Amino acid sequence: MQQQISVITLGIRDLARSRRFYADGFGWKPVFENSEIIFYQMNGLVLGTWLDEALAKDMQRDGLARPGAFALAHNVATREDVDPVIDRLARFGGRVLRRGDAPPHGGFRGYVTDPDDHAWEIAWNPAWPIDAEGHVRFGV
Amino acid sequence: MQQQISVITLGIRDLARSRRFYADGFGWKPVFENSEIIFYQMNGLVLGTWLDEALAKDMQRDGLARPGAFALAHNVATREDVDPVIDRLARFGGRVLRRGDAPPHGGFRGYVTDPDDHAWEIAWNPAWPIDAEGHVRFGV
Repeated sequence: MQQQISVITLGIRDLARSRRFYADGFGWKPVFENSEIIFYQMNGLVLGTWLDEALAKDMQRDGLARPGAFALAHNVATREDVDPVIDRLARFGGRVLRRGDAPPHGGFRGYVTDPDDHAWEIAWNPAWPIDAEGHVRFGV
Repeated sequence: MQQQISVITLGIRDLARSRRFYADGFGWKPVFENSEIIFYQMNGLVLGTWLDEALAKDMQRDGLARPGAFALAHNVATREDVDPVIDRLARFGGRVLRRGDAPPHGGFRGYVTDPDDHAWEIAWNPAWPIDAEGHVRFGV
């Protein structure tokens, strides 16, 4: 099967609060929004933020828990970009989990949550190229 | 900031069990693997599967819980592909949450978990084009 992820859907509890983080904090432009979901066109996939109850009903799964055992990452162009992005996201409803520092595998990274406790790694990883359309390639 | 997600990292509890689901079930080829993490090059981003303890330590966050309030989606080319993919993933360590049916917004979709209880939507969405490199575009 194609190595392809079409959508990441994050369960959220408050649409306006989440929108502030993504649309104002990250500065990402929604491609679609209604009273229960907002979609963002990303780098070859779509990010959706959907009210918990609607997502749970669609999955036919109860008891969604936080924090989930996952993280998303947004890589930035320089080491010096990491902490300012974390600080900015914290001002737009996020919470800092880890300020930027250098991991054993190289680069520089920290973590901040969104308002719904989903973790974002903000990282500078010089081994992983990012093209003008945001497509990210693994490298060592 | 660039509308870009660089990595999705899923916390896992057993590397071999998870590898079977992704590498054998989905048929995705790892681009890197060691004793605690496997990376897959996806459509403009990277999927990582990382042992829970290592991910939690990196995030400086305890108490990772399941099921998380999120879902990933893998879109397929036809309506008839949905249930066979769900069945196949169930044979490789997944668990069916919802068999394929037609949602109110159109198309056809079901849900299956990976062996670590992370939800995958398997969907046919004729409004969202997917190019040869797997890049997915929102549409209505």
